[in-house]
Amino acid sequence: MRIENIGEFGLIERLTKLIPIKDQDVIVGFGDDCSCVKVDKKLLLFTNDIQVENVHFIKHLQDPKDIGWKLISVNVSDVLACGGIPRWAQVSLGLPKNLEYQFIEDVYLGIRQALDYYQFYVIGGNVSSSKQIVLDLFLVGETQRFLSRKDAQEGDWVYMYGYTGLSKAGLELLLMGKSSYEDFEKRLIESFTRPVIDLEFRQFLHKNAKACIDISDGLVADLGHIANQSRKKIVIFKDRLPIHRDLTAYCKKYKKDPYQYILYGGEDYIPAFSSSKDLNRNKVFKIGKVEEGQGVYLKTGTKLQNLKPQGFEHF
Amino acid sequence: MRIENIGEFGLIERLTKLIPIKDQDVIVGFGDDCSCVKVDKKLLLFTNDIQVENVHFIKHLQDPKDIGWKLISVNVSDVLACGGIPRWAQVSLGLPKNLEYQFIEDVYLGIRQALDYYQFYVIGGNVSSSKQIVLDLFLVGETQRFLSRKDAQEGDWVYMYGYTGLSKAGLELLLMGKSSYEDFEKRLIESFTRPVIDLEFRQFLHKNAKACIDISDGLVADLGHIANQSRKKIVIFKDRLPIHRDLTAYCKKYKKDPYQYILYGGEDYIPAFSSSKDLNRNKVFKIGKVEEGQGVYLKTGTKLQNLKPQGFEHF
Repeated sequence: MRIENIGEFGLIERLTKLIPIKDQDVIVGFGDDCSCVKVDKKLLLFTNDIQVENVHFIKHLQDPKDIGWKLISVNVSDVLACGGIPRWAQVSLGLPKNLEYQFIEDVYLGIRQALDYYQFYVIGGNVSSSKQIVLDLFLVGETQRFLSRKDAQEGDWVYMYGYTGLSKAGLELLLMGKSSYEDFEKRLIESFTRPVIDLEFRQFLHKNAKACIDISDGLVADLGHIANQSRKKIVIFKDRLPIHRDLTAYCKKYKKDPYQYILYGGEDYIPAFSSSKDLNRNKVFKIGKVEEGQGVYLKTGTKLQNLKPQGFEHF
Repeated sequence: MRIENIGEFGLIERLTKLIPIKDQDVIVGFGDDCSCVKVDKKLLLFTNDIQVENVHFIKHLQDPKDIGWKLISVNVSDVLACGGIPRWAQVSLGLPKNLEYQFIEDVYLGIRQALDYYQFYVIGGNVSSSKQIVLDLFLVGETQRFLSRKDAQEGDWVYMYGYTGLSKAGLELLLMGKSSYEDFEKRLIESFTRPVIDLEFRQFLHKNAKACIDISDGLVADLGHIANQSRKKIVIFKDRLPIHRDLTAYCKKYKKDPYQYILYGGEDYIPAFSSSKDLNRNKVFKIGKVEEGQGVYLKTGTKLQNLKPQGFEHF
């Protein structure tokens, strides 16, 4: 049996079962955006995300500074989804021997831009040769309260902070390799190449969120994680899903269905969360509801459709 | 300019300069076996080591359980060298899509064996597809006192705990790909494939060591790190260097110079340290002295020879 037949989530499920955790200082292990441990009175968050050439980025199509920026941002997104702020990181580099030095220096300058922006430091690391460029970041964060995927309750509303689908459209545009792009296309590409995480939003999450996740695998897949782990059903209201005007322009120009992007896009790096409250804030969209049951459903008028979690997988 | 022209250490030096650390909770940043941060009253250690197919291991020649075991052990070695015990780890896997699942499950079983042995847990991780197999471990340790590379003082003796050179001989034997090996050859191969870290030795280090490092790049290269960072000279006494009987047998059979292995081998994963005391303990070898000056020297009788740090580099 090969790994591609098992898939990313199947693989993770099988492997994590092999190592049961018996440590009372471990508050959260596998299965959330971060793991969480107790150190004295503090809660530390650990997360890591690997960026592999031609899987997560395409060297000749992207600015190396953006690749460095994104390496940091995708990990910061995991920490935010657990309610935390980033504190320290370690970086692992796997680099081909014949790689031009300037490329990796530029990646590092992008890393530095992101560190300045999010205000923390890379404090250690490791390099090795490899065939593909591999950039792996381990991020340590800190939180007052761990926001988990498990805490959605019946009657909660489901919210997301920002728009989904832009990154997928951006990647498609990037892969077209056009010599010139319209302004809205450039902005979509930037959603993919240079995601920006709003750490200020953490206060709002702490005040209002029960379950929380970062949307990286696609809205349906990630709400599916909340639904599964909270043992609830999530109903998405189709008419409440926000469509960004740049995505509208993209779908019009290239004759695409925007809901394929909004529901299944991936790499959005914005928080989705449940809350019992009626929330009113710029870019916070009420998109669904938590009910008894299981699975993720799309409600269009009175029609209810079960959605398969055809999310973004790396295999 | 390409990375192979700069080398591993040149690359690290250039890149770390790009990100200065300004955080008073960071006790030690780049340049030691682990970085170290203060969390409440505790000192946490962070380290990571990446194992890349055909760079650090050869899939068809090694037991996958050993590959998992080694991934854990090489990181535990860094934590021990800083005086700590391992607490929690995160693992990153880059795997080819067509890799057979059984291989990675066996790697994981080796990881579990090592975790049981060293008594800590992998609590989170990440998987991605990649061309080569990439295994990256991030290890968090804890220490009462940070043992640094910087603290060697004039007049200290230099010690190592165990033998060097075995792993290099073991790798060479492994690469011969013979259908059968003598017993001493099997033991040498195991030094390379399945290093065992003696965490019990931590108490002894805490009581006696000033500067400390784990010998992973080769004895001369790693003593060079202590010399450089302590701004001292280290003189190795050639006649005090221990030669393991298996290495003697190897060098006799294959007509090799044992000192090439002992001085420059690499991947030994044993601690070298300086101490002002006369130490007497099984497998603790007094091999040199710290003096005013710089560089690493080999003393043979009354002859003093400057040694270049031709250590193990991954580029």
